[in-house]
Amino acid sequence: MPALKAYLAGPDVFLPNAAAQAEAKRTICARHGLIGISPYNPELDFSLPAAVLWRRIYLDDIAMMQGCDLIIANLTPFRGASADAGTLVELGWFLGQGRPAFGYSNTAEDFGARSRAQMRASPDPLPGIEVEDFGLADNLMIQGAVEYGGGVSLHLPPDGRSRAFDALDVFERCAAAAALETRR
Amino acid sequence: MPALKAYLAGPDVFLPNAAAQAEAKRTICARHGLIGISPYNPELDFSLPAAVLWRRIYLDDIAMMQGCDLIIANLTPFRGASADAGTLVELGWFLGQGRPAFGYSNTAEDFGARSRAQMRASPDPLPGIEVEDFGLADNLMIQGAVEYGGGVSLHLPPDGRSRAFDALDVFERCAAAAALETRR
Repeated sequence: MPALKAYLAGPDVFLPNAAAQAEAKRTICARHGLIGISPYNPELDFSLPAAVLWRRIYLDDIAMMQGCDLIIANLTPFRGASADAGTLVELGWFLGQGRPAFGYSNTAEDFGARSRAQMRASPDPLPGIEVEDFGLADNLMIQGAVEYGGGVSLHLPPDGRSRAFDALDVFERCAAAAALETRR
Repeated sequence: MPALKAYLAGPDVFLPNAAAQAEAKRTICARHGLIGISPYNPELDFSLPAAVLWRRIYLDDIAMMQGCDLIIANLTPFRGASADAGTLVELGWFLGQGRPAFGYSNTAEDFGARSRAQMRASPDPLPGIEVEDFGLADNLMIQGAVEYGGGVSLHLPPDGRSRAFDALDVFERCAAAAALETRR
């Protein structure tokens, strides 16, 4: 059977060393028998008008997703209580397509605690808005997407200690599990 | 042709008056010939253990989505620079299913400005992480999902002035457009 292609979604594309991070993830995937496909594209012409450029990135990403068998989503919180917005749309897309979804987060703190921290830093626009607090890593639709879409839970730091934003050891555990689950 | 069913995704479920908000949205949908389906379920047994309860909500929501023809997503920013996390997974699911996707936001400020405000309130975990700044209302995957998935852009306050978090006039414009686009 040819190796499966894993779409490597995440805010990694925004890192200052995005190209090196993408390469490191592809190397880890290869170690576990997966072909990692990163949405990071250094050949994009960033001199294009914004209205052309973002649509090109969107359509390129959708085309890459179409060509992938599964997603491994970096669900580490990004600029708010939850994971990166684009990554979440992509996670939902794989779920909607019935293609396996896997995810990980480098943050050990749970969603309820992070939501309250966010509210302290930037108060809610109205009083009394509920905090979702099921002890999960993020909003329950995310937890459900990876649990019911991939057959395993969301991968978190196994020792309960948050990792650096760009650490790769939890990603490697997730990639190993994704390879194992989709091989069956 | 029977009326189409619209899944009313959004952080509205967390509002203190969630039941009334869901009812108001259904009434607006009916005015435009759509059947609004709200994920808010007041009959849930909140005394269930968290591990049972969240899975029940997840599976109920997925079943409701399966029964809907389109999504109207409330993409107003929620506890961070971007829209509500669960809503984004649901938006992606409709896109992945090839079912029409529509969205609106009550916030007029663009994503770049909101990202920088978020970074001032809660600094990024590493220096040098890029700000996506195409002048869009949110991450480009969201804008693309509604533009390519629904045939219209993301609906924003037409006068450029942000609305209250729970205002419904921009929702009504979006519902009217969704009814028109899906009737063709």
